[in-house]
Amino acid sequence: MTNDRILATYIIETAHPLEKAAAAMAGEQSSGTFVPVPGETDELRARHGAQVIRITELEPVDAPSLPGSRPPKNAPTPPVYHRAEVVLSFPYENVGPSLPVLMSTVAGNLFELGQFSGLRLVDMQLPQPFADAYPGPQFGVEGTRRLTGVYDRPLIGTIIKPSVGLSPEETADLVKILIEAGLDFIKDDELNANPPYSPVARRAAAVQRVINEHAERTGKRVMYAYNISGDIDEMRRSHDAVLAVGGTCVMASLITVGLSGVAALRRHSQLPIHGHRNSWGALTRHPWLGFDFRAYQKFWRLAGADHLHVNGIRNKFCESDESVIASARECLTPMLGGYTVMPVFSSGQTAEQPPDTFRALGSVDLMYLAGGGIMAHPSGPAAGVTALIQSWEAAVQKIPLAEYAQTRSALREALEKYG
Amino acid sequence: MTNDRILATYIIETAHPLEKAAAAMAGEQSSGTFVPVPGETDELRARHGAQVIRITELEPVDAPSLPGSRPPKNAPTPPVYHRAEVVLSFPYENVGPSLPVLMSTVAGNLFELGQFSGLRLVDMQLPQPFADAYPGPQFGVEGTRRLTGVYDRPLIGTIIKPSVGLSPEETADLVKILIEAGLDFIKDDELNANPPYSPVARRAAAVQRVINEHAERTGKRVMYAYNISGDIDEMRRSHDAVLAVGGTCVMASLITVGLSGVAALRRHSQLPIHGHRNSWGALTRHPWLGFDFRAYQKFWRLAGADHLHVNGIRNKFCESDESVIASARECLTPMLGGYTVMPVFSSGQTAEQPPDTFRALGSVDLMYLAGGGIMAHPSGPAAGVTALIQSWEAAVQKIPLAEYAQTRSALREALEKYG
Repeated sequence: MTNDRILATYIIETAHPLEKAAAAMAGEQSSGTFVPVPGETDELRARHGAQVIRITELEPVDAPSLPGSRPPKNAPTPPVYHRAEVVLSFPYENVGPSLPVLMSTVAGNLFELGQFSGLRLVDMQLPQPFADAYPGPQFGVEGTRRLTGVYDRPLIGTIIKPSVGLSPEETADLVKILIEAGLDFIKDDELNANPPYSPVARRAAAVQRVINEHAERTGKRVMYAYNISGDIDEMRRSHDAVLAVGGTCVMASLITVGLSGVAALRRHSQLPIHGHRNSWGALTRHPWLGFDFRAYQKFWRLAGADHLHVNGIRNKFCESDESVIASARECLTPMLGGYTVMPVFSSGQTAEQPPDTFRALGSVDLMYLAGGGIMAHPSGPAAGVTALIQSWEAAVQKIPLAEYAQTRSALREALEKYG
Repeated sequence: MTNDRILATYIIETAHPLEKAAAAMAGEQSSGTFVPVPGETDELRARHGAQVIRITELEPVDAPSLPGSRPPKNAPTPPVYHRAEVVLSFPYENVGPSLPVLMSTVAGNLFELGQFSGLRLVDMQLPQPFADAYPGPQFGVEGTRRLTGVYDRPLIGTIIKPSVGLSPEETADLVKILIEAGLDFIKDDELNANPPYSPVARRAAAVQRVINEHAERTGKRVMYAYNISGDIDEMRRSHDAVLAVGGTCVMASLITVGLSGVAALRRHSQLPIHGHRNSWGALTRHPWLGFDFRAYQKFWRLAGADHLHVNGIRNKFCESDESVIASARECLTPMLGGYTVMPVFSSGQTAEQPPDTFRALGSVDLMYLAGGGIMAHPSGPAAGVTALIQSWEAAVQKIPLAEYAQTRSALREALEKYG
């Protein structure tokens, strides 16, 4: 029977008794009604009702984390806000093989329930039928390595900056510099998709001319993730345009395109899908609301993303290093017998973070994206790329960076600049 | 020039100087770079840079609303957290006519920026090219009234409960009861889309048999919103199945289907799209994170929703009455010369709220959905529907409910039960 159930783990905060609050979650998201109605039989409840599997009480607090909740009438003054980790089990049969309906079920209206001053989905386990319905990542780590020819170390990448405003030809000129610097991977900014000043088909044609020429000459085919985020038909057309000129990757803004859109792109795509998670902050920034990436990324792996952004340690955003590493680990943990994706580290990354990143993650199956960390290297972008590769070598061999840098000027200069 | 700009209004909270923080938002979401790079010319910045249009300072606070922000090094101890309303202006040319890219631009990474302990998008004004690119609601208020034949009062509706578990035939049996009770509108629960125990095509066939028979006999065609939320091709197939049996409405879970999916459905659809906003709580529950519905609903109106859920006053969720009314007003305010949608009131609604709802909204162009507020009426569902209609009559005529109820037993019993 467990094989047919969806398990969802939450942290909750409530002034109501925990058992009652958890039961309200289960009722609201399965066979709940306002009042007893004719069709609501015991048999139906047994077959379709969600169940509370486990409640693990945590330390209570004396003030609500979120406004708007309603304590019970008999609560003490001031109320105690109980906290717990709660596991619910939903019948697969309620949902069917649909990611949007899955999200409406395990998340949906829960965040608005008046009983809760905090509610966050932190993990999720899915049954086999989802694997039967969704093909998942088409390339993942292995496919991405095969397309780029980069093995045994992270793919070193960068993002086209300025974020917006470069023409296709200006982009191609910049790509030429970046390729010559030795980068494995280049991506569009999430702000630059298919704008009038740089339509993706024209951008891909200009950029791939440079990439293809370099590949023919040197054998090294740099992967460029073209941001094709948009409406479905537009994304399909853009994908085809990228494929036609020899491109090897497309990028989609997962959250703003949405689950149905990404799943449709995956079914059409012949290229890896680089999954950007912009707008994720709105869903995760408050620790007692929304989602942990541990849970959230499973939707996008099933939908078919091959690469998933996870931020980076000591990033310029608000995310903690623990959260970054937990997200990256989860990407590399097989789900439903497969579905691993390549985590993408970015945001304020330099030659300084690889040792800590490798120590925490224990893997080089990742993309390591830097902007200033490459472009601002005192000896230029090529030295910037070399320094990152050297830092990862030191990390894997567990040699202190300063020691490894003694005989390697690119790394030494990088540490002086960014350390 | 204003015609080519996207205006976005935020509330922000930051320990940094407000001008600097606002400039960081503009930079991050337009031509920003980590470090000066070759392509970043003054001309490019002038053409593609976002601009800070206005900063209106609000009362500061002494503790951060969200964790994870980084005060500047020279901040006082403890830091002061400044608050302001900020208006940014983005060049349309950066975005192009794309809702996903628009969202990545006006929202996107902003929520994660380390300078902010609070950041929320509260309003948005869009230029004409979006109206040229997106057809918007196909039916809206007028089309929905035309399909149902209900004029000059709200459409009275209900939701099939139990939420999940009824077979197509059991659903049709319940629909028969609801139609005979006089309802104008019935909808699936957001949890019940296309599950194995009630595929939407079979459910529509069974339900429409009842609805069509009643329409032929009485002339009254009840609108049923079939929840077709799912993957794109699945939604198109489900839509066609609903259309083929004479259905007059489909429903989509906007947030879990996503912008590209809803826009694709709109381009295919011959029926009104009932837009359900489940999972919205994650994006709005914290007052200093995410979105006001005033801003957020504009994405879905452009994408093509005809009806939009706005909760109801004195609802069972956490939303304030002010927020509910502001959302509903916005739905009825034309955008880009049109695009009005029908607001859908639900959650704990009974005969008790119409006067306050009408007083605040000044319109009857809405759906008024009740569950227990109809089904639990002492004299049965037909009296429940009658009581709601009577309550709205009293509301529009500005007659106190108690007075209007004196000669109307359905309303009187409802007020005794729910008052």
